[in-house]
Amino acid sequence: MSLTVAVSGASGYAGGEVLRLLLSHPEVEIGAITAHSNAGERLGALQPHLHALADRILQETTAEVLAGHDVVFLALPHGASGAIAAELELLSPGTLVIDAGADHRLQSPQAWERFYGSDHAGTWPYGLPELPGQRAEIAGASRIAVPGCYPTTCLLALAPGFTAGVLAPEDVVIVAASGTSGAGKSLKPHLLGSEAMGSMSPYGVGGGHRHTPEIEQGLTQAAGEPVTVSFTPTLAPMPRGILATATARLKPGVDAAEVRAAWEQAYGEEQFVHLLPEGQWPTTQSVLGSNHVVMQLAVDEHAGRVIITAALDNLTKGTAGGAIQSMNLALGLAEETGLTQQGIAP
Amino acid sequence: MSLTVAVSGASGYAGGEVLRLLLSHPEVEIGAITAHSNAGERLGALQPHLHALADRILQETTAEVLAGHDVVFLALPHGASGAIAAELELLSPGTLVIDAGADHRLQSPQAWERFYGSDHAGTWPYGLPELPGQRAEIAGASRIAVPGCYPTTCLLALAPGFTAGVLAPEDVVIVAASGTSGAGKSLKPHLLGSEAMGSMSPYGVGGGHRHTPEIEQGLTQAAGEPVTVSFTPTLAPMPRGILATATARLKPGVDAAEVRAAWEQAYGEEQFVHLLPEGQWPTTQSVLGSNHVVMQLAVDEHAGRVIITAALDNLTKGTAGGAIQSMNLALGLAEETGLTQQGIAP
Amino acid sequence: MSLTVAVSGASGYAGGEVLRLLLSHPEVEIGAITAHSNAGERLGALQPHLHALADRILQETTAEVLAGHDVVFLALPHGASGAIAAELELLSPGTLVIDAGADHRLQSPQAWERFYGSDHAGTWPYGLPELPGQRAEIAGASRIAVPGCYPTTCLLALAPGFTAGVLAPEDVVIVAASGTSGAGKSLKPHLLGSEAMGSMSPYGVGGGHRHTPEIEQGLTQAAGEPVTVSFTPTLAPMPRGILATATARLKPGVDAAEVRAAWEQAYGEEQFVHLLPEGQWPTTQSVLGSNHVVMQLAVDEHAGRVIITAALDNLTKGTAGGAIQSMNLALGLAEETGLTQQGIAP
Amino acid sequence: MSLTVAVSGASGYAGGEVLRLLLSHPEVEIGAITAHSNAGERLGALQPHLHALADRILQETTAEVLAGHDVVFLALPHGASGAIAAELELLSPGTLVIDAGADHRLQSPQAWERFYGSDHAGTWPYGLPELPGQRAEIAGASRIAVPGCYPTTCLLALAPGFTAGVLAPEDVVIVAASGTSGAGKSLKPHLLGSEAMGSMSPYGVGGGHRHTPEIEQGLTQAAGEPVTVSFTPTLAPMPRGILATATARLKPGVDAAEVRAAWEQAYGEEQFVHLLPEGQWPTTQSVLGSNHVVMQLAVDEHAGRVIITAALDNLTKGTAGGAIQSMNLALGLAEETGLTQQGIAP
Repeated sequence: MSLTVAVSGASGYAGGEVLRLLLSHPEVEIGAITAHSNAGERLGALQPHLHALADRILQETTAEVLAGHDVVFLALPHGASGAIAAELELLSPGTLVIDAGADHRLQSPQAWERFYGSDHAGTWPYGLPELPGQRAEIAGASRIAVPGCYPTTCLLALAPGFTAGVLAPEDVVIVAASGTSGAGKSLKPHLLGSEAMGSMSPYGVGGGHRHTPEIEQGLTQAAGEPVTVSFTPTLAPMPRGILATATARLKPGVDAAEVRAAWEQAYGEEQFVHLLPEGQWPTTQSVLGSNHVVMQLAVDEHAGRVIITAALDNLTKGTAGGAIQSMNLALGLAEETGLTQQGIAP
Repeated sequence: MSLTVAVSGASGYAGGEVLRLLLSHPEVEIGAITAHSNAGERLGALQPHLHALADRILQETTAEVLAGHDVVFLALPHGASGAIAAELELLSPGTLVIDAGADHRLQSPQAWERFYGSDHAGTWPYGLPELPGQRAEIAGASRIAVPGCYPTTCLLALAPGFTAGVLAPEDVVIVAASGTSGAGKSLKPHLLGSEAMGSMSPYGVGGGHRHTPEIEQGLTQAAGEPVTVSFTPTLAPMPRGILATATARLKPGVDAAEVRAAWEQAYGEEQFVHLLPEGQWPTTQSVLGSNHVVMQLAVDEHAGRVIITAALDNLTKGTAGGAIQSMNLALGLAEETGLTQQGIAP
Repeated sequence: MSLTVAVSGASGYAGGEVLRLLLSHPEVEIGAITAHSNAGERLGALQPHLHALADRILQETTAEVLAGHDVVFLALPHGASGAIAAELELLSPGTLVIDAGADHRLQSPQAWERFYGSDHAGTWPYGLPELPGQRAEIAGASRIAVPGCYPTTCLLALAPGFTAGVLAPEDVVIVAASGTSGAGKSLKPHLLGSEAMGSMSPYGVGGGHRHTPEIEQGLTQAAGEPVTVSFTPTLAPMPRGILATATARLKPGVDAAEVRAAWEQAYGEEQFVHLLPEGQWPTTQSVLGSNHVVMQLAVDEHAGRVIITAALDNLTKGTAGGAIQSMNLALGLAEETGLTQQGIAP
Repeated sequence: MSLTVAVSGASGYAGGEVLRLLLSHPEVEIGAITAHSNAGERLGALQPHLHALADRILQETTAEVLAGHDVVFLALPHGASGAIAAELELLSPGTLVIDAGADHRLQSPQAWERFYGSDHAGTWPYGLPELPGQRAEIAGASRIAVPGCYPTTCLLALAPGFTAGVLAPEDVVIVAASGTSGAGKSLKPHLLGSEAMGSMSPYGVGGGHRHTPEIEQGLTQAAGEPVTVSFTPTLAPMPRGILATATARLKPGVDAAEVRAAWEQAYGEEQFVHLLPEGQWPTTQSVLGSNHVVMQLAVDEHAGRVIITAALDNLTKGTAGGAIQSMNLALGLAEETGLTQQGIAP
């Protein structure tokens, strides 16, 4: 099989990562590469790590340019995917469209409007295959919403406990640290190396972060009852990686062995998600550039809480790798095709 | 006034920071500088940033060498302070002894033995002046236990809410990130730059961290009832700094204005602890090398929790700066003497 | 004595560092604090590490606002100092004006015009007291040009060898690494933390860097004959610090002892510049936030070259600390007043 | 084809990188994985990024364990390869042995003994295919010496100029910055994250670095006359990457176009070595984890020098990637097999 694949938003970090991974995908031929303000420039000047594509020129992101490919990845600013997806539906109805942006993740138009302030573009199948029942939804889909990088981490960390019924739904607390690439290539002073290196800081504290409704949506689905989350993201002095510390109250009468069994059962057969052996803690370095997720859990009987710590690469499993994993599923390819790279360490 | 001050453990990070700050203290003359395995070496080879003391030779850490000074700082491994403090009591009864180690922080011998596995050396006045009533206890003391760096951060973040009665005591959750110097100058693979840079990882998860009983001790005292804490420390890719994200359930009927008022009242007159203006978040960079603490809070009504984020320098306010602040109080000096350095940024 | 001091360009990195150091200066009262695009904002929002000045509001940078102070620091973009200095001369003739920008460093109008592309504003006394004869020029001056951070490092590294006549002038090669703050608070993609962390890169290679004529000017003066320099700056993944590796050919017949003696003689009495003991190499960490410079030299007989490596903090000794050191000299204060802070390590 | 490959020294950084890359190699089956002090441990505990091999147990490094494989990689401490290679010659004569250590790189036994202090183990074909004539030497070899990471960078940077006769041989000056993984997993204080982060420092200055004779050997071969090098390595605050700034005097009468043509001709057909378009500078980030090398050059007519800056990943092209590239050549595989990963950025 040789699939033609177009990538929009190719001058940004998410688009660059999609291209990096597609270059290792044996069934893919890279077609149009597009951007908006950088259209007309050499890709090598903007993404100098993509040596194989250095001489490609960025085209303008339009439905016409993207049409006709087997697969189109949208890596656009929030709010921009809806319109172009609608155009593609007319121009290129057989194309698989994968949206790495937020536009099609939320089921609730109200939640979308409250957190993003624009009209809701609709809900697409949610591209997180390791959630219960999700593989079936992705297989054969023609539209896929790539989960946010924080939600991917938090849902993978917590869902097994809600699916197995060992966690109480009412008071989940998550604190997560992300590398700076999670903020995109935004020219803001606090993202300058001089200010980000050697410094940690929180942001979007107190329920205001856009990823909270997406996390609650996924956990509520796993639990079968409403789950409430307090989510605090922090910015860490590293380019990539998310480490989430997720805690939930233990349901009465549940013991530590049942807790561990829930995660073992959920991920025992998964090739990208690993519950580490007891005594070993996840590090973001061990997943750098890979589609893997590592996690560990502990039952704190004193505090009555389960603590799950999980690490992934926000641009790979958290964005582009997860997107390609879903693409493979949707197209009937082996799920790991093109995603066999290990972490880069040290 | 000119005080002679001895510093033990001077080849380590805590001892080095005590010396750095004492060099800016106008009332201090530095006397003996001691170490154990590095005794006999030039300080300049071990602490090359202390230019003013580069040619001093480290003496062996013994009670005889430390005796006769007005003040002695102990920056020794956990468990080593008790014996030398007892000897100093005999040899040099008028000396103010300040223990930067853990030995004299805990009130409960049981807690000490459970977490440290040795005999409890006793409890000394707790050197955190910003806690209610603590200044009086420190003033005139001849023995001071310097709080741990995580407890300093967590107690300053949360105590005002418990003192004011706006926080529920039963389910406090704290996740904190520390720079690598918090682990000391230990030669362990995960502390190598190659492995620590660009990586975040948790450790001591699930109630096992030694700082948990110290945090609970202080919060219980502030609340007047038992406070239970789930505390997860993480290692961040920076040499210095702690960012704590501390959350507690709001007591029923309390509103956001009351919450904010509790912290404003607690720290309005403090010179080192700052509740930032609304909308501004703490960064560890803004306190680097200084004795300052910055914090912000948010009431998450959706989750029913207050979230306080606080940043300090683990070696300065978290260890050596806090120690000197207590020294000043104990000796009747203005509390900020020698501690007026601002943060180093960017 | 109490001097009133105004600082312009206070929202930038150089201006912020001048303020940080002035806050530790016992003879200074901080007057006007000014900026251009940030005028009207709270300093605490822009320089959150300057806790003591958090509530000060930035004024607009005009000669009227700056006039009437004993000292004015100009930390403005290149090319902007000349006009405001001329206005100050009229409005406030007794004010000591210290220019942290490049405008008044070069003696040659031709060199200025070639590298900066505008009219030359004139030449002021060069504020590098450790160069031979320079203290006399600074003492009593009413105008001081603060050297560039790279030239400060390179001149201190090499001048003793040219003064003593042990180095050949015709083929000096310097490669220097600077932390990102050397590029200022510029919103450019390659300065984003995501791109700067974990990466090294050169820039301005091949004679095009603006600091080359300033380095040659100083070395030529020390040598008494024209010195030619190949200078390559690189960007290093750290916020602060410069490490320069400077090499020059040994003059025929000179031996290693004579070489070392030249530096020992030049800096034996200096309090801020240190030739380290043999076997110890400079680190930028050991001078972080301090006005100190550390260096080491080696004679490579095989290659016929002397290699001097020197480290300083680009914002402290390389900019603001050097500026205050010159201010002290010009005003008859002890040279180290307000500059006694040690390095911050680890 | 399916080759069985054994890797010794698998607990170290070089051995881990060989394994990482072999896992992406389509013709390879990983056989024995060995170590010395870590024999008997789970690989997942030591190299947690190698998810696919997490449950493999390290065997003891002996000739018996390594024998019988098609290829054996030696990633051992300097001086340890000679003996085991001799044993393998007897036990397993058909095995291709690739030494990632220094033992078999130097042609001169005198140079080896002076810099390494032990008996010279012999000289093997030098595994740097991009040097003139080197591919022929590697093709069909049964023993390959992997070049050092600094020599790989410096030789690729400078060789075209000597081959083409545009550079003068007598006064080459190189300053290179390396990430900390270049020092291996050594438990030394200056390699701790607390001391390495945010700091740059030189080491081995003045001709003492072991890589100098290897660089001179390669350049002398390219020039056809003796080349003398002054080489200064520095340690940069990043886990991986080398940036070399290499300068040499221009031969009289050579112009800039001839210089550029020399590099264009040398690398125009190479798939891993790239002379960047004019105006674009190399960054170590753009080659992270890849087998690529990027470089740029400038002719500084004022100083009479050519400056070449080159970046690679010290563990990939600088060690394990280069080793696998040579393995491919020796075995008649396409040179890029298993090495098609792009850089990881940001």
